[in-house]
Amino acid sequence: MQHVQFYQDEFTSFLNGFTTQREPVSLYNPINYILQLGGKRLRPVLTLMTAEIFNVEYTKALDAALSIEVFHNFSLVHDDIMDDAPLRRGHQTVHEKWNINTGILSGDAMLIMAYQLFENYEPNTFQALAKLFSKTALEVCEGQQYDVDFETRNDVSVSEYLKMIEYKTAVLVGAAMKMGAIVANSSAQDQDNIYEFGKNLGIAFQLQDDYLDAFGDPKTFGKQVGGDIIENKKTYLYIKALEFSEEKNKLKLLDLFSETIEENEKKIENVKAIFIESGSAEATKKAIEYFTNKAFSVLETMSISEDKKAVLKAFGINLMNRNV
Amino acid sequence: MQHVQFYQDEFTSFLNGFTTQREPVSLYNPINYILQLGGKRLRPVLTLMTAEIFNVEYTKALDAALSIEVFHNFSLVHDDIMDDAPLRRGHQTVHEKWNINTGILSGDAMLIMAYQLFENYEPNTFQALAKLFSKTALEVCEGQQYDVDFETRNDVSVSEYLKMIEYKTAVLVGAAMKMGAIVANSSAQDQDNIYEFGKNLGIAFQLQDDYLDAFGDPKTFGKQVGGDIIENKKTYLYIKALEFSEEKNKLKLLDLFSETIEENEKKIENVKAIFIESGSAEATKKAIEYFTNKAFSVLETMSISEDKKAVLKAFGINLMNRNV
Repeated sequence: MQHVQFYQDEFTSFLNGFTTQREPVSLYNPINYILQLGGKRLRPVLTLMTAEIFNVEYTKALDAALSIEVFHNFSLVHDDIMDDAPLRRGHQTVHEKWNINTGILSGDAMLIMAYQLFENYEPNTFQALAKLFSKTALEVCEGQQYDVDFETRNDVSVSEYLKMIEYKTAVLVGAAMKMGAIVANSSAQDQDNIYEFGKNLGIAFQLQDDYLDAFGDPKTFGKQVGGDIIENKKTYLYIKALEFSEEKNKLKLLDLFSETIEENEKKIENVKAIFIESGSAEATKKAIEYFTNKAFSVLETMSISEDKKAVLKAFGINLMNRNV
Repeated sequence: MQHVQFYQDEFTSFLNGFTTQREPVSLYNPINYILQLGGKRLRPVLTLMTAEIFNVEYTKALDAALSIEVFHNFSLVHDDIMDDAPLRRGHQTVHEKWNINTGILSGDAMLIMAYQLFENYEPNTFQALAKLFSKTALEVCEGQQYDVDFETRNDVSVSEYLKMIEYKTAVLVGAAMKMGAIVANSSAQDQDNIYEFGKNLGIAFQLQDDYLDAFGDPKTFGKQVGGDIIENKKTYLYIKALEFSEEKNKLKLLDLFSETIEENEKKIENVKAIFIESGSAEATKKAIEYFTNKAFSVLETMSISEDKKAVLKAFGINLMNRNV
C-alpha cells in the first residue's frame, strides 16, 4: 500500500492521458474542461486503494476509477444546470461557459463514456462493474430527485433525509470502493463489507458537510459558511432543530426559512442559535460519530490484515478531519 | 417469422409490463409518460425480427428491444429540451408538462435503465450488447451535436451532412438489428451485415424524411409540410440546391434562408421551386434510391434463407413507402 498522495498523483496522470481529441470538439471540449477542473479525486483514489487492499495492483483498477470520476463529473454538470449554479471549484460551470444545451449533451456523453471505461475488463468483471454502476447511478438520480422534491415540502423526516444523502452522495463512495474489490475478484462478503464501509463513511461525510456549513471555520471550510441557511436548505441540522424545539423556536425557525431575506448575517446568527439551543447541533455531531463508527465497525469484521485496516481507518479519520 | 404487426403487439404488451412503480414518482412518472406516448416502435420490432431471422425466439430479444426503445425515448426527451419543442406525438413534451430539470433528470435515469435491461443476458452477450449500445449512444450524441453546430454554419458539405444523419438517426437502426443478431449469437459477419443493412436503410429513411418534408402529401406525411424550410434547416435538399444552382438562385436561396419571415407560404413555394429547378429534388430521390439499394445489396450477400431475405426486403420497401 502507498500513501493517498501517491494514488492521487497516479490517478491524475492517468486522467490527463484520457483527454479526448474526438470530434465534434463542441461536444468533447466541455468534457475535457470539467475533468480538468481538479478536486481531490477522493472517489477514484478509494477505488485504487481498495484494489490494493484486496491484493491486485492499483493499475488494474485505473479504468474503473476513471469511470467513477467521469460519472461524478457528469452528475456535477447536470446538477449545476438544475441548481442554476454559476461556479464550480471557482471556475465557470459548463452551462455558464457554453450553454445549457451543451451542458445536457456533454453530460449525456460522459455518462456513456463512464460505461465504456469498463470495456477493457473481461466479461464477468465487466458485467459486475456495469451492474453496480447502473444501480448506483440510478440511486444518485433518485437522490437528486428527492433533494429537489424536499425543497417544496415542510414535513421531511430524518429517515427520508438520511435516505436522500445516502443515495445522492454516499452510495457512490461505497460503489467506488466495491469496484476496487470487484476488479480484485475478492469474495462477495468482502465486496459487501467494503461497500458498507464506504457508504457509511459517505453518510458521515455529508452530515459533517451540513454541520460545517453552519459551524465550520470560514478559513478552512472552502465554501461560504451559512450557505445552506441562506438558501433555506432542509439539512439534518434543520430537521432535528424542528423536531427538538418547543413551539416558539419552531415557529421562529419556520419563519426564518420561509423567505429569502437581505439581512443574511442576522438570519445565520438566529438560525445557528436555534440549532445550538435545541440540541440539534449536538445531535448532528452524534450522528456523524454514529455513522463513522458504523463504518469502522464493519472494518473490524473484515478478513484483511491489521495493517490494511489501519490504512482504511486512517483514511476515514483524515477524511472526517478534512485532512485529505 | 411473423408479420410486423405481431411483433409490434408483442413488444407493446412487454413495454406495458415494464411500467415502473419505483419511487420517487416525480422521477419515474415522466418516464412512464413518454414511453406510453406511442409511436410505431420500429426499432424494437427490428430487434425482435432480427433475432428470429437468426433462429432464436423473439422473446429472448425483448429486453434488448426495450433497451433500444428506452434509449430512443431518452434521446427524444433531451432533444426536445434542446429544441424547445412543445409537442411530441401530439402531446406535451416532458419538459413542458413538468419542467426542464425533470426532463434532464428523468432522461438521465432512462439512459441508465437502458443499460440495466441487458442485465438478464449472460456475461458475454451482456458485454457485446453494452459495447454496441455505448458506441451507438455516443454516436447519437455526436450526431445531435453536429446538427446543432450546422445551424450556425453556411459551409456544410454533403459528406458532413450524411455523417450527421448517419450518427443521429441511422446507427440506432443498425444497432437495433445487430442486437437481435447478438442475442441470437450469430456470426460476426452476419452481425456486421445486418448492421449495415439497418444503417443504410436508416440513412435512406432520413433522406426521404427530408424530401417529404418539402414534397410530401400534407394528408399523409404526419408533420407540417415545409417545416424544415420555415426553420431554415440545412437538409440534403438545401445543400444540393446550393451546390447545383447558378449564382442568381444560389444568392436567392441563401437570402430566403437568412431570416424567419412572416410569409411562410410564399417562402416555401420559392424554395421548392429552386429545389426542383436546380435538380436537387431529383438528386435527393437518387440518393434515397442509392442507400435503399445499398441496404438491399448487403442483404444479397448474407447466408440466410431467401424467405428471410424477402421478409427484410418487404420491410424495407414498406418502410420507404411509409406503410409500416
